[in-house]
Amino acid sequence: MSASEQNSSGGTGDAVATVLAGQDDIRDWLHDLYRSVHEHPELSNQEVRTAERAARELKDFGYEVTEKIGTTGVVGVLANGDGPTVLMRADMDALPVKEDTGLDYASTVTAQDADGATVPVAHACGHDVHVACLLAAARLLAEAKDAWSGTFVALFQPAEEDATGAREMVDDKLADIIPKPDVAFAQHVLAFPSGKVSPHAGPFLSSADSMRITVHGRGAHGSMPQLSVDPVVMASAIVMRLQTIVAREVAPNDFAVVTIGRISGGSKSNIIADSAVLELNIRTFDTGVSEHVIDAVKRIATAEAQASGAPRTPDFELYDHYPLTDNDADTTARLTDAFTAHFGDDVDDNGRQSASEDFSDIPTALGVPYSYWGIGGVDPDTYTEAEKRGTVNSDIPANHSPQFAPVIEPTLSTGTATIVVAALAWFAGSGS
Amino acid sequence: MSASEQNSSGGTGDAVATVLAGQDDIRDWLHDLYRSVHEHPELSNQEVRTAERAARELKDFGYEVTEKIGTTGVVGVLANGDGPTVLMRADMDALPVKEDTGLDYASTVTAQDADGATVPVAHACGHDVHVACLLAAARLLAEAKDAWSGTFVALFQPAEEDATGAREMVDDKLADIIPKPDVAFAQHVLAFPSGKVSPHAGPFLSSADSMRITVHGRGAHGSMPQLSVDPVVMASAIVMRLQTIVAREVAPNDFAVVTIGRISGGSKSNIIADSAVLELNIRTFDTGVSEHVIDAVKRIATAEAQASGAPRTPDFELYDHYPLTDNDADTTARLTDAFTAHFGDDVDDNGRQSASEDFSDIPTALGVPYSYWGIGGVDPDTYTEAEKRGTVNSDIPANHSPQFAPVIEPTLSTGTATIVVAALAWFAGSGS
Amino acid sequence: MSASEQNSSGGTGDAVATVLAGQDDIRDWLHDLYRSVHEHPELSNQEVRTAERAARELKDFGYEVTEKIGTTGVVGVLANGDGPTVLMRADMDALPVKEDTGLDYASTVTAQDADGATVPVAHACGHDVHVACLLAAARLLAEAKDAWSGTFVALFQPAEEDATGAREMVDDKLADIIPKPDVAFAQHVLAFPSGKVSPHAGPFLSSADSMRITVHGRGAHGSMPQLSVDPVVMASAIVMRLQTIVAREVAPNDFAVVTIGRISGGSKSNIIADSAVLELNIRTFDTGVSEHVIDAVKRIATAEAQASGAPRTPDFELYDHYPLTDNDADTTARLTDAFTAHFGDDVDDNGRQSASEDFSDIPTALGVPYSYWGIGGVDPDTYTEAEKRGTVNSDIPANHSPQFAPVIEPTLSTGTATIVVAALAWFAGSGS
Amino acid sequence: MSASEQNSSGGTGDAVATVLAGQDDIRDWLHDLYRSVHEHPELSNQEVRTAERAARELKDFGYEVTEKIGTTGVVGVLANGDGPTVLMRADMDALPVKEDTGLDYASTVTAQDADGATVPVAHACGHDVHVACLLAAARLLAEAKDAWSGTFVALFQPAEEDATGAREMVDDKLADIIPKPDVAFAQHVLAFPSGKVSPHAGPFLSSADSMRITVHGRGAHGSMPQLSVDPVVMASAIVMRLQTIVAREVAPNDFAVVTIGRISGGSKSNIIADSAVLELNIRTFDTGVSEHVIDAVKRIATAEAQASGAPRTPDFELYDHYPLTDNDADTTARLTDAFTAHFGDDVDDNGRQSASEDFSDIPTALGVPYSYWGIGGVDPDTYTEAEKRGTVNSDIPANHSPQFAPVIEPTLSTGTATIVVAALAWFAGSGS
Repeated sequence: MSASEQNSSGGTGDAVATVLAGQDDIRDWLHDLYRSVHEHPELSNQEVRTAERAARELKDFGYEVTEKIGTTGVVGVLANGDGPTVLMRADMDALPVKEDTGLDYASTVTAQDADGATVPVAHACGHDVHVACLLAAARLLAEAKDAWSGTFVALFQPAEEDATGAREMVDDKLADIIPKPDVAFAQHVLAFPSGKVSPHAGPFLSSADSMRITVHGRGAHGSMPQLSVDPVVMASAIVMRLQTIVAREVAPNDFAVVTIGRISGGSKSNIIADSAVLELNIRTFDTGVSEHVIDAVKRIATAEAQASGAPRTPDFELYDHYPLTDNDADTTARLTDAFTAHFGDDVDDNGRQSASEDFSDIPTALGVPYSYWGIGGVDPDTYTEAEKRGTVNSDIPANHSPQFAPVIEPTLSTGTATIVVAALAWFAGSGS
Repeated sequence: MSASEQNSSGGTGDAVATVLAGQDDIRDWLHDLYRSVHEHPELSNQEVRTAERAARELKDFGYEVTEKIGTTGVVGVLANGDGPTVLMRADMDALPVKEDTGLDYASTVTAQDADGATVPVAHACGHDVHVACLLAAARLLAEAKDAWSGTFVALFQPAEEDATGAREMVDDKLADIIPKPDVAFAQHVLAFPSGKVSPHAGPFLSSADSMRITVHGRGAHGSMPQLSVDPVVMASAIVMRLQTIVAREVAPNDFAVVTIGRISGGSKSNIIADSAVLELNIRTFDTGVSEHVIDAVKRIATAEAQASGAPRTPDFELYDHYPLTDNDADTTARLTDAFTAHFGDDVDDNGRQSASEDFSDIPTALGVPYSYWGIGGVDPDTYTEAEKRGTVNSDIPANHSPQFAPVIEPTLSTGTATIVVAALAWFAGSGS
Repeated sequence: MSASEQNSSGGTGDAVATVLAGQDDIRDWLHDLYRSVHEHPELSNQEVRTAERAARELKDFGYEVTEKIGTTGVVGVLANGDGPTVLMRADMDALPVKEDTGLDYASTVTAQDADGATVPVAHACGHDVHVACLLAAARLLAEAKDAWSGTFVALFQPAEEDATGAREMVDDKLADIIPKPDVAFAQHVLAFPSGKVSPHAGPFLSSADSMRITVHGRGAHGSMPQLSVDPVVMASAIVMRLQTIVAREVAPNDFAVVTIGRISGGSKSNIIADSAVLELNIRTFDTGVSEHVIDAVKRIATAEAQASGAPRTPDFELYDHYPLTDNDADTTARLTDAFTAHFGDDVDDNGRQSASEDFSDIPTALGVPYSYWGIGGVDPDTYTEAEKRGTVNSDIPANHSPQFAPVIEPTLSTGTATIVVAALAWFAGSGS
Repeated sequence: MSASEQNSSGGTGDAVATVLAGQDDIRDWLHDLYRSVHEHPELSNQEVRTAERAARELKDFGYEVTEKIGTTGVVGVLANGDGPTVLMRADMDALPVKEDTGLDYASTVTAQDADGATVPVAHACGHDVHVACLLAAARLLAEAKDAWSGTFVALFQPAEEDATGAREMVDDKLADIIPKPDVAFAQHVLAFPSGKVSPHAGPFLSSADSMRITVHGRGAHGSMPQLSVDPVVMASAIVMRLQTIVAREVAPNDFAVVTIGRISGGSKSNIIADSAVLELNIRTFDTGVSEHVIDAVKRIATAEAQASGAPRTPDFELYDHYPLTDNDADTTARLTDAFTAHFGDDVDDNGRQSASEDFSDIPTALGVPYSYWGIGGVDPDTYTEAEKRGTVNSDIPANHSPQFAPVIEPTLSTGTATIVVAALAWFAGSGS
């Protein structure tokens, strides 16, 4: 049996077993770490506490750590002999959502958002899982250096929710700070059963754009609508009309989402304001569709302003552009083989997801192939019962819901193991 | 010629002429006072500076002053011999509006509203005019006590914009503080030509109710609308459907206004929130219509929640009830005669107004007849030109508009004279 | 006692009593006549049977009759000595409505409308009452010629529902056919208690305009919305947006109705058509309001077409213009006195009505003062009970409803008496 | 070289070449036939002329013909020795669409639809192409019987547009009339370039359901909206709200179409009707999605009726159910090979189509595998230019558009050749 044969089969499995053997010993630490991060969520580019914890832990594990890349970005590099360089990224930021999970470690945190408003903050998107699992995997790899050879890069990114964090780290000379990776990975906890792992080749996460529409009316006393151009009616008419884009203008075979995440107009019941704001999120898997949708949004909002007799056309501002996450085919095939060897039937390609990510800005800037996978976060029993009732979609809170609450286990153990398995699929035996 | 004949004709005119003769001397003081109040607007129940100024001035004029009635209410009583007691009320509070008048004395003030949010504040409703004119009239009457006989009560009320201030003063034992008036008056500056005065018998200002509707959806990530019940769409559908109440359900001969002054849902483009809020203002001149409209609002919002598949029905909260302002016929006739004798052709009944007021809570509680009139605030030249172009409604900012800006003169002189003329219509010669 | 005193008091009353004494004798005939007309409704300009019946009866009564004025118009002239000429008009046409009254004399008639479509026809507007009452009054006056002196003109008009019949009769030289009247009258049965009479001075019935909007989309197979511009969605969006005109653009004190009486688009569930049609009815009591509303309708429909990305702007066609019915003050005062003398407390000014009428085209063309009044048609007991329950509006079918069903008595007797009383208020004693 | 090798390669090619050699000779006949069918379109179950022409031609070609299967269905059977039985189906019916193609052979035909209304009729869906091509292929196969062996069944189906024709033929004992086929085919002309052929394995055409919603309001005169429950507003609100099903309730990865093909309410601008009708078409590729959409439509319409205060809930009627067209994998693979051998690069799998078909009811009832393919109908030059401009969707009229006009060639030659090639892929050499 040659060395190379060993590496690609039993050898990887041995290394995985060796590294993951440490999971039992670190479980209490991992759970405490997770609960602490969950309980102290931080808004985008405010991830100071989380970044400090990540940096401190990485240093303790023996990583060479660089902090404050972009705003609060952290990378830890563990050079462990010859072999490939594998980058794993976790995003750190939380959301302006009021947690409503009933967990004893639920967030009660508030913070000032970019506009200076005080808002509740919660890890309603599961980035706390990503942070905890990456630190756990980084620790396990550091504690079993004999089992593998190569360089592991643990990257903690700020501001994924603003679509700016990955780009900020790239712009702050990430390429000069870390060795060039051979491959880059990221993962996301999603609303399927905990314990399940979902790799997917090709387009996996949609591109996304946010658009702010400010409509201009004319203010008046609430009792004199005839003197006003009512911006609340204008904004509402736009919302209703925007539904027709996905329903009537996009081919039913094409993927498109137009979400109006925020509407805001007026301050008081008896004053007609002179403007209102809509914030939209537009997601597609195709550039042509994306362009059509954005044009249609502008066409509709402009026309609705005319219908209202508005004094001027709305303002349109595009922001938070997320690139398409398009998993490399060869990388994903190798990854899927490694996952299947370890997780068996728990590997299940759930297909492309409608979420978006800025992760790919990092490998794209570095010229590195990448793959991004999903892990389940829902209590399998809960899921099975909801599935029996046919109420998965209505009973199980999804990411960004105030009730989103990944079950701690097997989520954290699975999310740790995926990283170890993925890294070892490139590392294992390479040094022997 | 008998005394009574004197009183009812030349006598009143003489007294008016005598009292108003002082206007020239106080004009600079009045303008400074007005600009100062305008530049320092205060939100409802926060009228500390305005109230202190009113109290200080009244004391200087020789009034017996009581402060902090309700929250910041002030009354000054000038007992000047036998004769009737006349109460004149001015409201003091400003609005959470960002002033956009370009005036050199424009407000740049912000304050914390009842929810703790920092908001801009401006006298966009003209209460600064009411305060200044009442202080000026109080001064003129005090400086010409020989010309009349009776008791003048100058009342400065907080929180008219919340519909609570009049009631607060009544509840804080106003009846024990002042002598029972024979008549009560109030006035409002409106968007017709400055110099004009508009008395009106019978229903003059509408009743009003505010209603807060909170709709409940289900939050989700912006990319997964199928997991959500979208509260922004629900709220917008309600807004569009509410238009049908006035358009289709209220008889075209009946008066009804349904303004949605505020809509607010979601915090971020890519998060679907789990609730949204609408704040409505409902105005009518008829209790039956009012009840029908409120029921229809509830029916529509409830049904739209069902159309969305909402997890529960909306919450409805009624607040800021304003009574109907129904001017006493005899009082208004006597008032109109006095106005006509003084202002001639500038007296013009512009009919009932769609605005609302809590003033009448005071005379109603005291068991006193009342009349409430309007004065113009728009530069007559501007008005005439807008009228020629047929653009009065679109060119001239109305009350509550960020551009609402009464022209200082003849607005202040007219608004002072109306009070003097009204008071003397009851006082004049009564002591002789 | 002078003759003129006689005329204006007991004289008129005597004449009324004399003429109306015949009512008992003709009641069976009147009821049969009414049921026959009700059972055989005819669409506008198709009133052949009704006109023939009217002409035949008038000839039998001794009137000089001219037929087929305009299309089916009929006038009967009864010259009865010196004195004023009084014109009374009844409209004859029915509506394309499927009667749903459950009456044993309900219509089961269908007819071809102007577009060639077969439609149900019913007297859902009560013109059968007008025809029957005018024939009854004409008969009573003919049978009691000694009681009065003057000329009575009974005019039966076609096509009121199309707003064309009055104009057609005028254009067909009505002025040459009849002596110039001194006064012209018309009446309408309305949804208030039978037995009541409602005269009203000044503007009584609104002006009205109909507008046909044809929106242009792009047809496609129902499965390929992305290739279409969907005219059904476009038309529906226009309907919803048009609600904002009355709700937000017209001052709440002003009267305006915008009814979309007809919407029609597409022929089959799985074909997206390339156009749709809306037919609107716009009613106001003010030319400025009318112009604003018509402009707003065009603005909104044009903008909604742009929102849809329509290949071209909608087509707008105005038709069926109804003039304002503005009752002459002196005429109405004299009429009201006469009604009050006869009907006592049953005379009740219900104020202006939102309906419209082309009747005034006749007196306007002839240069004659006019007054138009309402009579009740609802069973008084039913009305009283509905009033107690507060369900008048929901329980009692109004004009144009498929359930509209005037109670035969006292409706027909009252509607006959109003004509006799009105005519005698001009005629009575004038010949003595 | 063995016989079997011949059959599967050059042998089929030879047979195809031999049969298609006749195309030049029949081209004038084919074009005349096509123009005649196009010019004389017939509504569903009224295809008398078309069926008679098909039957006559088939008899002339030597087929054994059965007529009037179901309503107007025709089958011709050509038994030509041993070998497989191949069924090819063409649908015959046209649509109630007013043709607007400008062709010199455009339809000017009208007919009475099922409701007795007179409607224009046109071959806006291209069934004339299907009829002409099947007759041409039937002729070519009959004229070259030496080139193949087996049984060819040419089936002409009525009422595809009503989703009833296939079922009617099955129910009228089709299985007893024809030999059991080994395979069944059908084709459709679509809006891609003429000359192209598009086979597709698996789900190809969506399932479809039609639903008629009748909403109930309360009629009134157009001037008295307050007495009505306006069915036009109710129907329009439903249309706008239904847009949210595809836009918000169906997962963006799932396919769903909700088309409201017909809206109809009211007959006249100034009458508020008491009901309105919507006719919907619902298409999906998944039963769960279909059920969710149908439930959501009912939920929304019911709630909108409540929002209107409707006297009763809407009526829902499901009709015109189309099954999923799910092409057999093996059959389609064999077919695609044969197409590729003959058409080369012109074979292009355009993926699943959003249209629906009842064709599969026939093979499903007979227990036969089937495949259904598309052929292009658009002038390739026009298409290329539109593609360059990026205006394919807006410039090129799709099926069911009044402007839908397949270019005669190469459409008819291609559509004939596809049938011959498909049939010979089963027949060729089988008899040798």
